[in-house]
Amino acid sequence: MQFSQRAQQAPASPIRKLAPLAELAKQRGIHVYHLNIGQPDIPTPQVMWDALRRAKIDVLSYSPSGGIPEFRRALLEYYNRLDLGIEPDHLIVTTAGSEGILFALATVCDPGDEVLVSEPFYANYNGNSVLLGIRVVPVTARPEDGYALPPVEELRASISARTRAIILCNPCNPTGRVYTQQEMETLVALAREHDLYLISDEVYREFCYAETSPRSVLSFPEIADRAIMVDSLSKRFSVCGARIGCLVSRNSDLVGTAMKFAQARLSPPTLGQIMGTAALALPQAFYDEIIAEYRLRRDVVLEELGRIPGVVCRQPEGAFYVMAKLPVPDAEAFVRWLLTDFQLEGRTTMVAPGDGFYATPGAGASEVRIAYVLCEDDLRKAMAVLAAGLRAYQPAEAAAQESD
Amino acid sequence: MQFSQRAQQAPASPIRKLAPLAELAKQRGIHVYHLNIGQPDIPTPQVMWDALRRAKIDVLSYSPSGGIPEFRRALLEYYNRLDLGIEPDHLIVTTAGSEGILFALATVCDPGDEVLVSEPFYANYNGNSVLLGIRVVPVTARPEDGYALPPVEELRASISARTRAIILCNPCNPTGRVYTQQEMETLVALAREHDLYLISDEVYREFCYAETSPRSVLSFPEIADRAIMVDSLSKRFSVCGARIGCLVSRNSDLVGTAMKFAQARLSPPTLGQIMGTAALALPQAFYDEIIAEYRLRRDVVLEELGRIPGVVCRQPEGAFYVMAKLPVPDAEAFVRWLLTDFQLEGRTTMVAPGDGFYATPGAGASEVRIAYVLCEDDLRKAMAVLAAGLRAYQPAEAAAQESD
Repeated sequence: MQFSQRAQQAPASPIRKLAPLAELAKQRGIHVYHLNIGQPDIPTPQVMWDALRRAKIDVLSYSPSGGIPEFRRALLEYYNRLDLGIEPDHLIVTTAGSEGILFALATVCDPGDEVLVSEPFYANYNGNSVLLGIRVVPVTARPEDGYALPPVEELRASISARTRAIILCNPCNPTGRVYTQQEMETLVALAREHDLYLISDEVYREFCYAETSPRSVLSFPEIADRAIMVDSLSKRFSVCGARIGCLVSRNSDLVGTAMKFAQARLSPPTLGQIMGTAALALPQAFYDEIIAEYRLRRDVVLEELGRIPGVVCRQPEGAFYVMAKLPVPDAEAFVRWLLTDFQLEGRTTMVAPGDGFYATPGAGASEVRIAYVLCEDDLRKAMAVLAAGLRAYQPAEAAAQESD
Repeated sequence: MQFSQRAQQAPASPIRKLAPLAELAKQRGIHVYHLNIGQPDIPTPQVMWDALRRAKIDVLSYSPSGGIPEFRRALLEYYNRLDLGIEPDHLIVTTAGSEGILFALATVCDPGDEVLVSEPFYANYNGNSVLLGIRVVPVTARPEDGYALPPVEELRASISARTRAIILCNPCNPTGRVYTQQEMETLVALAREHDLYLISDEVYREFCYAETSPRSVLSFPEIADRAIMVDSLSKRFSVCGARIGCLVSRNSDLVGTAMKFAQARLSPPTLGQIMGTAALALPQAFYDEIIAEYRLRRDVVLEELGRIPGVVCRQPEGAFYVMAKLPVPDAEAFVRWLLTDFQLEGRTTMVAPGDGFYATPGAGASEVRIAYVLCEDDLRKAMAVLAAGLRAYQPAEAAAQESD
C-alpha cells in the first residue's frame, strides 16, 4: 500500500519531531528545558477560566462556522482598537492560526501553485503547503543582515507564473525580526506589481520590544483586496491548547469563499471562544506586564548566548524566538545528542534544529531556534546546559577556546 | 484578484449554508426547529463538566500532536472493549471527525486522485476532497433499495487508475443505513482486488436500532494495512463543540505518516480531551439510555412522515438521520421558503436540502435530510410545520390529495 506523494513529502515538524527523545530523557529522570516550542509558561489569565466556569452550558454544541457572535464582536472591537477598520464579513474564527494559514493558502492557491517566503520561516507554512499541494519558494535572509527582508531583486527573481502569494510572519517566528516600514512597503509594492496576495501571520503582534510596532498588512488600504491576516490567541493569552484564532481580510468576497472551507470542518472549538471573549476585554496593562517579562527573557538569552564561544546571533525585536548559529556542523545531531547522551546535574535543554525552518536544502544546518518561554532562572540554567553541552560535544575545540 | 479553482469549486455546506436565513427568521420572532444539523440536544454528561472543573491547569498548553496520554489510553481501552486490537501507534487524536477525514484523504490521495463513494453521502467528504484537490466519484444508491450499497458491478465500473480509496459512513449519515455483513465483505473484497484504501467514518457506531451492530472496518484482519477508521466524540457524548475525534489504523506506517500532518497543525484542543477522558469511562447504561431515546425519536419522525401525502422514505437502522423525498421539484427552494415565507403559529422547521449529499448533478433535488435530534414533543411540532408547509407550498396538489 502506497501513501500519497504529499504524505511522503510532508516534513516532520522540526519543533515536534524530537519530542519522543525528550520523553525518553524524562523517563530516565532528566529534567528537560523546553526551548524548542513556543509554549509560553505565563499562566492563562484567570478571567478566561472564570468565563468558562460562569458559562451555563447544557449541551456543548457546534458554534457557527465563522465563530460565536460574542467572540466575533470582541475580535472586531480588538482590531478596531488597532484602527484596522474590520467589518463582520471580514472575519472567520479558525481553529488557531494553523487553520487560518490552511484556509488562506487554499483560498488563493491551487495544487502546483507557488508561495514566496523569506527563509528561515515558520516551518508549518511548508507543512500546510505540502498538504495542499502548494510549493513554497524560499528566498534566503541573512543572519548578518538581521534576517532583513532579502533584496527586492532577489524576491522578484523568484516570482514565477505560478506564484500566487507572499507569506510573512511579523513579528517573525523564528527570527524575531519586526519588519520595518520600508520592508512592508516593498512587499506591498511587490504584491501589487505581480498581482499577488500578501498573507501575514501576526500572532506575535504584541510581542514587540522595539520602539516601532509591527505594521499590520491590513493597514495598507492600497492592498485591501489582496491582504490576508492570520491571527491566534495562543501566544498572547497563553492558551495554545484552546486552538482559537482567526482569518481576517477586508476582501469580503475572499472571506465568503474561505467560509466554504470553514463550513466543511463545521466549527472551531466552542470553549476556547468563550474564554477568548473574556481575554479580549483585558486592559493594556495586561500586555505591558507580559511584554516586560519577555523583554527581560530576551535579554537574558542574548546575554547567555554571548558568553558561549562560537555562537552567532542577533538581538531580535519581537516574538519570543532567537535564531542562533552554533559551532557545530549539524545542529540536529547536536540537539539529539543533548537529549540522548548529555546531562548537566540531571538537566538537559531541547531547542529546535534550524534546518527545518529553511526550504533550501542544506541551509540552516548549524542553526537552532531558541524559544525564550521560561522564567529567567530556568532560562539561565537551560543556557548553562547548552554551553556545557557545546563544550562536551566538541571537547578539542572547547578546550582550545578555554585556554584563550 | 482571482481565488483558487478549489476555492471556487468548494461546495457550500447543505447543512449550514441556509443558516443565515434561519437567523433572519429568528430575528422576526419565529421559533426555528433545527432538524438540518446533527446537533444532539441530549445534555453533555455531567462527568465531562466535572472533569473540566477538577482539572488543575495553570497554562492551557498545546497537547502532544497525537493527543494527551490519558485520553489516548482511554480511547485504546474503548476500542479494545470493542475487540479491535488497537495499539498506541495506531491512533492520532484529531480535531473532531472532520480533521480525521482530512488527514485520511491527504495521506492516501494526491491532487487529481479519486475516492469512490456511495451517494447520498456526508457532504463534507466532498468539501474536504475539494480542499485537497481530490475528486469524489459517486455511485448512486437507491431509496427503493433502502440506500443499500450499489451493486458491485456499478462500483467496479467507477474505479479508474486514479482511484485510491473508498469512503463510507457506517451507520450512514445521511441515510441511516447500517451496512450488512455482506455489504462490508463486498467493500473489503473490492478494496483488496483494486488495491484501494477503505476509509470508514464510524462516528455513529452506538446509534444502531437494528439487531446487528455495525461492523467496524478495523475488524477485518485481511485489510489491516488498508483500513482507516475515523471517529468522533461529538455525537455520542453531545460535545460537537469540543472538536475531538481520532484517526485509527492498524497500519502503523500510515499513522506515522499522517502524524506529520498532525504536527503541522500542532495539536487538537486540550479541554475537549480532558472531557473526553471522563466520557470514555461511562458505563454501557449511558449508551443504552440514549439509544432508547433516539429509537423513539426515529419512530416518531417516521410516523409523522408517513402521514404526509407524497413523502417517500424508509426506516433507517442507525445514526439519527432520515432521507425523505418530498412532493416538491426543488427541495432547496422549499427549505428556503419555509425559512423566509412560512410559519405555523410562529414556528418553522429547517431541514437540509438533499442535493448537497449527492455529487451527481441534479440528483437528490426533491430530497431532504432530517436529523431527529429534538425531543418527541418538539419533533411532532416540527413535523406538523413541515406537513403544513408542504400543503401551503403546493396548494393545488395538496387539495387534490386531501379530497382522496
